[in-house]
Amino acid sequence: MKTLVIVAHPDFDGSPTQNFLKASGQLMPDVTYHVLDQLYPDYQIDVAKERAILAAHTQIIFQFPLYWYSAPTALKAWLDQVLQTKDEERLPNYTGKTLGLVVATGTAEKQFDPGGSEQFTLAEILRPYQALAHKLQMTYRTPLIISQFSYLTEIQKQRLLIQYQQYLTMTATNFTAQTDWFVQRLVQLQQKKPDQPQLAAILATITANQEQLADLKATLALMKGEISDGSN
Amino acid sequence: MKTLVIVAHPDFDGSPTQNFLKASGQLMPDVTYHVLDQLYPDYQIDVAKERAILAAHTQIIFQFPLYWYSAPTALKAWLDQVLQTKDEERLPNYTGKTLGLVVATGTAEKQFDPGGSEQFTLAEILRPYQALAHKLQMTYRTPLIISQFSYLTEIQKQRLLIQYQQYLTMTATNFTAQTDWFVQRLVQLQQKKPDQPQLAAILATITANQEQLADLKATLALMKGEISDGSN
Repeated sequence: MKTLVIVAHPDFDGSPTQNFLKASGQLMPDVTYHVLDQLYPDYQIDVAKERAILAAHTQIIFQFPLYWYSAPTALKAWLDQVLQTKDEERLPNYTGKTLGLVVATGTAEKQFDPGGSEQFTLAEILRPYQALAHKLQMTYRTPLIISQFSYLTEIQKQRLLIQYQQYLTMTATNFTAQTDWFVQRLVQLQQKKPDQPQLAAILATITANQEQLADLKATLALMKGEISDGSN
Repeated sequence: MKTLVIVAHPDFDGSPTQNFLKASGQLMPDVTYHVLDQLYPDYQIDVAKERAILAAHTQIIFQFPLYWYSAPTALKAWLDQVLQTKDEERLPNYTGKTLGLVVATGTAEKQFDPGGSEQFTLAEILRPYQALAHKLQMTYRTPLIISQFSYLTEIQKQRLLIQYQQYLTMTATNFTAQTDWFVQRLVQLQQKKPDQPQLAAILATITANQEQLADLKATLALMKGEISDGSN
């Protein structure tokens, strides 16, 4: 799966959040970074080029800080120009692609809860993007929200790094998909650094756990079958 | 009450809807028109000037066609630049001002109803503007939606003209406020055209009706009082 991260931020280089995310995301294979404000500082989008890039990716991520309850100007300029259908040009087919959002807020996440100071939830505030995904027949993913990045502890930042990398490279986030993702990452790391015995040990443990879990699931399924056989 | 209509439309002069609204709105006193795409074709907003204009108006209307579930680029550029608080400059006080929306859609209004093709209601899609009003301690008005203007009949357009003029110049839309509004407009018209006896006749009828209605209300209140006295 190829992921295109479309970033809208008027001061991308000066943003600690965006720098952290870019450093995390660029470690991943098949991830393209696309910083609109740097590519198009005057908001004049190269529509043909953008459509070609869209066509080459299956997952599109809009990544931005929330400014007045929506993305900054650059993303709106991109949407208005790239998606417009007035001309005869054929639009790329968006059907089946995935749309994800990575949204940074300066306000604490709990202020968007019912009773919080913001009056509306982030799910509601981000509805226009969900409506867009629906219109384009894209699959809308639960947004990844990053609240008050500068207040995060080191541990929280490490967790965010994993979450973010998974968001960019996985479409499902269930337990099996997550362990598979870790195993895959460890195997890649081991290939790069074959002289680290700890990696092999961790991999062996996780793989053993996965096998044990698979056995337990099979036993459970068998027991359910027996009970169900007995009662019928 | 002074009303500022901030319009975002990349082709204002070429839009039948916007031309119709402007022709209707400009007949009203105390209404300022402000077409962002014409004032700032490169999206570089004159922030100090805009804040001074804002300070001079009590009602702010954002008027725009819905492009990909939000206002066109020009309004987002205006919001991002005029409302930003990074610099030391003092923001104008928005508390107590009113925020209204006049939104044109190319999609039939019923498609935004539950079960319609758009999946979300317009109230939901416009939530970011409601959240903005809440943040700025402004009073949010129910948006005026104009769906598929080009399909409207002449009668529907005349109704829209009245609705729009009322939206720009009234804050309440109950029955008494609406008749008062009509009387006021007729008095103004009569002053401009004193040689039209029909106007005087219409005015006399409406005024008589209003008096009769006031009498009926007083009688009703009296009857309620008597019943309530009798039962206690």
